[in-house]
Order: sequence, then structure tokens, then C-alpha cells
Amino acid sequence: MSEIRTESSSPTLALARALIQRPSVTPDDQGCLDLLTARLAPLGFRFERIDANGVSNLWARRGNAAPLFCFAGHTDVVPAGPLGDWQSPPFAAAERDGYLVGRGAADMKTSLAAFVTAIERFVADSPQHKGSIALLLTSDEEGIATHGTRMVVETLAARAETPDYCIVGEPTSATVFGDTIKNGRRGSLNGVLTVHGIQGHVAYPQLARNPVHQAAPALAELAARRWDDGDEFFPPTSWQISNIQAGTGANNVIPGKLEVVFNFRFSPASPAEQLKAQVEEVLDRHGLDYAIAWQLSGNPFITPRGDLVEALTGAIRATTSVEAQLSTTGGTSDGRFIATICPQVVEFGPINASIHQVDERIAIADIEPLSDIYHGVLQRLLAV
Amino acid sequence: MSEIRTESSSPTLALARALIQRPSVTPDDQGCLDLLTARLAPLGFRFERIDANGVSNLWARRGNAAPLFCFAGHTDVVPAGPLGDWQSPPFAAAERDGYLVGRGAADMKTSLAAFVTAIERFVADSPQHKGSIALLLTSDEEGIATHGTRMVVETLAARAETPDYCIVGEPTSATVFGDTIKNGRRGSLNGVLTVHGIQGHVAYPQLARNPVHQAAPALAELAARRWDDGDEFFPPTSWQISNIQAGTGANNVIPGKLEVVFNFRFSPASPAEQLKAQVEEVLDRHGLDYAIAWQLSGNPFITPRGDLVEALTGAIRATTSVEAQLSTTGGTSDGRFIATICPQVVEFGPINASIHQVDERIAIADIEPLSDIYHGVLQRLLAV
Ligand SMILES: [Zn+2]
Ligand SMILES: [Zn+2]
Repeated sequence: MSEIRTESSSPTLALARALIQRPSVTPDDQGCLDLLTARLAPLGFRFERIDANGVSNLWARRGNAAPLFCFAGHTDVVPAGPLGDWQSPPFAAAERDGYLVGRGAADMKTSLAAFVTAIERFVADSPQHKGSIALLLTSDEEGIATHGTRMVVETLAARAETPDYCIVGEPTSATVFGDTIKNGRRGSLNGVLTVHGIQGHVAYPQLARNPVHQAAPALAELAARRWDDGDEFFPPTSWQISNIQAGTGANNVIPGKLEVVFNFRFSPASPAEQLKAQVEEVLDRHGLDYAIAWQLSGNPFITPRGDLVEALTGAIRATTSVEAQLSTTGGTSDGRFIATICPQVVEFGPINASIHQVDERIAIADIEPLSDIYHGVLQRLLAV
Repeated sequence: MSEIRTESSSPTLALARALIQRPSVTPDDQGCLDLLTARLAPLGFRFERIDANGVSNLWARRGNAAPLFCFAGHTDVVPAGPLGDWQSPPFAAAERDGYLVGRGAADMKTSLAAFVTAIERFVADSPQHKGSIALLLTSDEEGIATHGTRMVVETLAARAETPDYCIVGEPTSATVFGDTIKNGRRGSLNGVLTVHGIQGHVAYPQLARNPVHQAAPALAELAARRWDDGDEFFPPTSWQISNIQAGTGANNVIPGKLEVVFNFRFSPASPAEQLKAQVEEVLDRHGLDYAIAWQLSGNPFITPRGDLVEALTGAIRATTSVEAQLSTTGGTSDGRFIATICPQVVEFGPINASIHQVDERIAIADIEPLSDIYHGVLQRLLAV
């Protein structure tokens, strides 16, 4: 069994527990940002609160020089779900069987705590470090995310204060702590397709036009299509129908319209505008009378191997002896917003197996090493 | 404008009004069969009530000899719908602007009245007619119809008392009274198809199996298929999807199953068992994991040109100067049950434009001619 440090010997665990005990269900920050500000103030950070629409955002920076290194993350958590299913109250931050258990333990309050303790140690050892250190924190990553990281990024872009490096503290490890770095994410493009037909009675099909029949060959073609081949970092672009609906419920009525909801997860090889044009070409060629409402949820981004990936893989190797793999799978994250102003963005954090579930947890044995890894990155990139 | 007969000069109108004034919403007969029985009793009919499950059925017969000629119909009506939309109360049987207006005026209480008045005149003139005259009446044609005509037919079949000719009094005329005889009906076969996939997240399509994607090419093939070419009496068999549904509502979840409700309207060229096998062959060939719940709503039937069609077209021509067309289009009717025990079944009655709608109506000018036509058929088939 792993050695369990006491809180006094694990400042990261102690801060993580304090954050988890604030029930900051998205987008209610519940004082988390104030707690972090209080810890960072003695280190010489300047703070800027950019709050809007009930969302709390913090931009904190130490120093003015380049390069600008940024830790990014969120204080908000998803709802606890059915309380009775938790083995301990979700906001009690209980330690049990070698785990810290609570909503946000893995996603991502322990990462926030590790940011702070890594910076504390680094600044204590290297008060005259190169460049600047920043934190970009929001209370709306799990929600609709329109007034969170995206808004801070727009504020920074407007004054050309753009990071050179950014680590987002999302839980990226899969089976062993340290095994996975996300160095990019696929884009996500939603579409709601409405195909118009002419309603009628099944006994008189010549007077109707069945939109399901008309759309079926087009949908079959779209489902079979290979959009691109992917590349070193991205799997091939994927198109999936999530919902389809037509019909009145009566079994003798030909429906007047068909609605199809679909989603692209796409790589940079297939830009969103190209995918839209390709879908519409297929629908046009099949002669459909249709409309599509498109919604671009996020463009893809990629951080190639370079200073940041090098520093992070080195720090992981030194701390855990694990060789981290680069990956772009999974859902979207705030990395997509930061990538628009920052050339090197990666995501790294704890094992994600329990996130958004009851009994969300992080192994206590992984907590101080997480701080060590973030600390190691600061040393590799900013130490004099 | 058409000449409007007074009730005293139009016994059919008078009886139709008396029937409409009984609000016999399916399957509640409201005494209609008793009223008809009282009119037929003096003519030497024998009566048999075959009631079950709240449904009232009447088998009435005059004579024992062959051939057995039968009028068939229903006393029940569909609900009136929004009362405020009617220009006169639906069960008032108002005469207005040359029309008899009320629920059941066209479908099919006027036909029942015309059966009776036609028989009264015929028996008066030909008390020693050839063969036998029967009526097969039910109060459950508009409802689920399991304990209506179907049950009477089973009773007659069990004792081998089977009609040689049958006219069902459904409203078959389309634009001009007398223009259309239904000499058959297509069959109707319903299917509920469930295609099983594996639910998952759109970001991880390799872990899921999208049943919509899998089914789309099979549905396209079924929609494009030509099942048969139809023939002199039947249009080609038609397959129509009436309802399709998959998805949780969330736009990031690949659905775990797809449900498709469909209906065949089929001609005798494509028996129901053959259609089932053809659908399943397509689904099997596309490798789908599926189940289908089949429900045969009715087999097709056809009455070729012969004594009955000859007599009916002749009577229509003599009464209205209209040349009736033979047709098998439209929905199902009780004719499908009678056809299982009777070689010649046709349907003929008033203009059907207003049936099942508010202000259901029949032109008063068409009412006595309807009785004349039914009378003309009796003369042609049974007069000595
Ligand atoms: Zn997160
Ligand atoms: Zn009817």
C-alpha cells in the first residue's frame, strides 16, 4: 500500500480539501477564487477579477517579462448527483482507503491546489525566475462556458497579453497517473437537420412525400463517408447521429418532416466550413428540401512536440518514471479557447476514471507528485 | 338547386334522420339495431343478435334458398369532435342548403336506411323472390373491430352459412354520386422494427455502435424497393415509414437503439408472408441486430367483374346515368372480413368527402337514388 502523508506533510492535500469543502457547483465559485488569491498574494501576484453573468474569473500574474507561462483551470464542479449513493458526503473531502473522495477531487480542485503549492515552492527557490507566471481560473467550465475562459481569453487578446505556454489541469491520466498528456483536442460541430416532406395517409402515398424515405440514402452516404484519415495526433474525423425523430405516433400517417441531430468530432485536416459544405453537397445531390442549424462548439487545436511537451514529459518521467503518451481523444475543454491566443497548450492532471460520478476520487499517493510535476515544468521552463 | 323532397316523400331520409339522432359513438349502438329490426320484422326476416364485449351485432335473413344476398354495414360513428365547430348539432340531423348534416350522414347511416327502404319496396313487389336477403350489421367498425363483423363472419363460417353476394354500404363515391365502387381493398401490414446498437459518447465512436448509421442503408433500400407492379385493380404495393425515433435528447450521446414503425398497403401479388420475408432478408443482409413485431391488420381482397359488379354498375347507370369505376384504393373496411366467406363483395355508397369531419353531410338529392340503386341490385339478382 502507498504511504499516506498527513496533511501537515502534504500542503497540496490540505488545500485540495479546503477547496472541495466549498460546494462550488457550476457556475457558483463559493469563494474558491478568494481562497486561492489569499494564498498567491504573498508571492507577488497581481490579480484581476473578470466576473460576468454570475461567473467568477481570475487572471493572476507574477512578473512582466516573457515568456509568459500560465496554469489554467476551473473551480466549478458538476452537481453531486444522488447523495445517497456516495459513501461519504460529496463535499466532506473524506480520506478513505488511500483516496481523497469528493466532488472535484479529480476534476479539478486537486490540480488547482497543486498549481499553488508548485508555484509556492518554485518562487521560494527561484524568486528571480525568468519570464512570468500566470493563472487563468474560471467558475464556468462545466456549464455553458460562454462567460468563463472564453471571455478572459478575449480580454487578454484585446490587450495582446498572450501566454507562450499553458498547462490546463484537467484530469488526463487514464490508467496510471502520468500516462497521458492531451496535446490537442478535436473540434466539435453540431448540426440540426430538418428535412421537409409532405404529410399524408399511408393509404395514399402518391399524395405525400415521405421525408424519412427521401433522407435515408443521404444519411446512409454520410454515415459511410470517410472524412479524412486523421494523422499522427488525431483519429479520423467522426460523424455521428445522436437523435432522429419523425412521425405523429399514429401508424397510418406519413410524416411531414424529419429531424436529425448530429455531431462532428473533427481534426484540423477537415475544417468546419469544409465539413458543412460536404454535408450540404450530399443533401443537395439527394434532392432534399432541408434546413440545417449549425453550431460550432469548438475548433480543434494541436500543440506539436516542443518546449512545453518536452518539459512536461520530462517532469512526469522524473517524478513517476512513467513515459507519458500524447493524445487528442475525448471531449472538448477550455484548452480550445486558450489555444486561440497561445501557441503551446497542453492538458495534464490526475486519473479521470471517477470524474462526474459518485465517489469521485484521487489517490492520495498521486497528490504531491502532481505538485512535483507542475513544479518540475516551472523549473525546466523558467528557472534561471 | 336540387329539388328537396319532404320526409313523407323520402322514407329513406326519414329513417336516416332517426338513426343519426341516436348518438351511437363506437361501439355504443344506442338502439339503432332495434330500430332497424322493428322495420324489417314485418317483412319476414329472422333475427339473430350476436353481441359481445359491448359490441352489438345483428344477422337478419329472409328466406332459406340460395343465392344468399347480403347488405353489410355499421351503426357506429366516430366521435363528433369539437362541437363548437359544427354549424348544427352533430346528432340533430339537420337539413340545410340541400344537405342532411350530422355525424353518420355519409358514414353510413343513410346507407343503412337505404338498405331498409330498398328491401321494403323489393319485397312488396317480389314477395316470392329468388334466394335470400340478409343484413350483417355491427356497432364496431370504427373502433378496434375485433368483436364486430369479424365475429359474425366466424359464426356464419362455423355453420357454413355463407353469402354469395355482399354489398357493404360504405361511402365510396368520390366527386359525383355513383362514380366509384370498391371491388376490393389492399391489405395492411404493420411492423415495429427495433434495431439494437451500443450506446456511447460521440467522442468515442469506436466504443459504440450507432443503430441509426447501421440501419440507414437498409431503410434506403426498403424505401427504394418496388415490391410488385400492381395489376388491373391494384396499385403497386407501398411501404411507408410512419415513425422513426432514436436518441436520448442529448447531442453528445450515440443512441443505443432505433425504433421504426412502418406499414405496407399490399396487393394480392405480394402476400403478407412474402413481404415479411423480404424485409427480414434486407435487414439480415445489412447485418442488423433487430427485432420486428408484425401485426396483420387485414389481407387484401378482390371481387372480379361478375354478376354482382354487373348488377351494381347497371343499377347505378339506370339511376344516375353515371358510369361507375372500380377501385381498390383507400383504407381498410369490414369488406376484408366478409371476403373470407363470400366470393363477391363490393362496397358502394354516398360521397365520402365529409366523413369523420365536422359538418359531415350527404346531399338530400342523393338519398332516394341510393335506395333506388340498392333496390336495382336486388331486382337484377333476385327478381323472379
Ligand atoms: Zn474539468
Ligand atoms: Zn364507415
